[in-house]
Amino acid sequence: MTAKSQTEWTGEPSELLRVGEGFRLADVDPDATPGYDGGKKDGKGDLDAGVEELDELQERLFAQSRVVDDSPAVLLVLQAMDSAGKGGIVRHVIGAVDPQGVQLKAFKAPSAEERAHDFLWRIEKEVPRPGYIGVFDRSHYEDVLIGRVRELASPEEIERRYGAIVDFEKRLTDAGTRIVKVMLHISSDEQKARLMERLDRPDKHWKYNPGDVDERQLWPAYMDAYQTVFERTSTPNAPWYVVPANAKWYARLAVQALLLEALEEIDPQWPAADFDVEAEKARLAAT
Amino acid sequence: MTAKSQTEWTGEPSELLRVGEGFRLADVDPDATPGYDGGKKDGKGDLDAGVEELDELQERLFAQSRVVDDSPAVLLVLQAMDSAGKGGIVRHVIGAVDPQGVQLKAFKAPSAEERAHDFLWRIEKEVPRPGYIGVFDRSHYEDVLIGRVRELASPEEIERRYGAIVDFEKRLTDAGTRIVKVMLHISSDEQKARLMERLDRPDKHWKYNPGDVDERQLWPAYMDAYQTVFERTSTPNAPWYVVPANAKWYARLAVQALLLEALEEIDPQWPAADFDVEAEKARLAAT
Repeated sequence: MTAKSQTEWTGEPSELLRVGEGFRLADVDPDATPGYDGGKKDGKGDLDAGVEELDELQERLFAQSRVVDDSPAVLLVLQAMDSAGKGGIVRHVIGAVDPQGVQLKAFKAPSAEERAHDFLWRIEKEVPRPGYIGVFDRSHYEDVLIGRVRELASPEEIERRYGAIVDFEKRLTDAGTRIVKVMLHISSDEQKARLMERLDRPDKHWKYNPGDVDERQLWPAYMDAYQTVFERTSTPNAPWYVVPANAKWYARLAVQALLLEALEEIDPQWPAADFDVEAEKARLAAT
Repeated sequence: MTAKSQTEWTGEPSELLRVGEGFRLADVDPDATPGYDGGKKDGKGDLDAGVEELDELQERLFAQSRVVDDSPAVLLVLQAMDSAGKGGIVRHVIGAVDPQGVQLKAFKAPSAEERAHDFLWRIEKEVPRPGYIGVFDRSHYEDVLIGRVRELASPEEIERRYGAIVDFEKRLTDAGTRIVKVMLHISSDEQKARLMERLDRPDKHWKYNPGDVDERQLWPAYMDAYQTVFERTSTPNAPWYVVPANAKWYARLAVQALLLEALEEIDPQWPAADFDVEAEKARLAAT
């Protein structure tokens, strides 16, 4: 199993959730919990169990990069409709990792300066350094999602971007960054319930934006745009994973499992000392 | 009490640890646990109890800044000799906060470009945005600590920097940033033991640098430099706190308490909705 201490998995999340040939987003049930036999309580327990593994793997990844040149990095890309749970992933999965090894970037609507550059200009600046786990909360994919649905660019420009993204990600992975692209998939009804909860609770009002309802009314267009993103940009080196996310506990557990698998494949090692350990002990003892 | 759910405090950490008139670093016992009656086990329990409070205060701080202009921020400055536990503070105190509300910056030796600018140039770029908790792991104080001890700048330039720092921090606090400056204070013997442990454990070798022993041999000069920093830069608006740090659990608990107090004084509130809640409920219901 990927997550050795997680007990209720019956299949590999990376295989079950990966976007491959013939993938249809419309066929994914947002309520499902693919490959996981347990319920919410098991899921929370397994998430806790995974924290320790993730912690050690992250520290090894970081340690290795301090000593070994051209060490790998990990980049987690999170995309989703509003309220699908990106924040919860950052809080509960990434938040359990030593912040010193994480580079988190939330991409908002581009500034005037950013818009004056190619869409990948601001992205390039935020790719994780060797040894780090980078997290993009939204990403360059906004430029082919809202960019397409809201017609913020011409169809020709949107077309160009799919290819540019594939080339960009190829360059990153060739240079040693492992990319894990996740779409959290909720149902339209679930979003409605979550937005309504934000309106019902004064301590959640700040998370609500009237524009959320406008975007919501374009749901089918967004699903089409995601489908095209998957077809054009899910590559062997940078595959997409669609994670059913109506059950928050499952989405968190699944993303943790995907990260664990990425790190296990890197298999980072404690680096050998690049100094004479015994000589240093003697120097230190003499102080 | 500052931290309402923390039970073993007998005094205010902010009063007991603050650098005031006549402060002498040499008089601080790195083994002490000022104002705290409990031991390690109590301390860990109280740290856990503080996490929830810190979590809510941070979320309120962030929420307020999303709606209210010119909202406050918090900046925690961490300075210490090697192995004093800055990393543990980041991991265990800051790591318990939602990473989406934290801006963490570890300052290393300045680059050639950074050295070509005034020493505050690279610092200014990293000050926290409104609503964020910024954390400096090392800071502009390196420029009057190692800068002085290693004579990286002339005495006149070091002199100039104390005043420049006071002015800089005054500007930040005037603009709404609450600054909490912490020196973690360990004894020279404790450092020796911690560095030796790094040499004894292959999984810690990457944290060891032969230069650590060179710096260690300048211990008295560093203590002098810290003493001068305290005399010149501990101001009412941006005071220094010296936290005894031989007991890691105490240092973490004390820094958490200082952060809690800073946030309680800001007293951030859930912001009122800047839209018509009932109208939005009706719009959402109609989708």
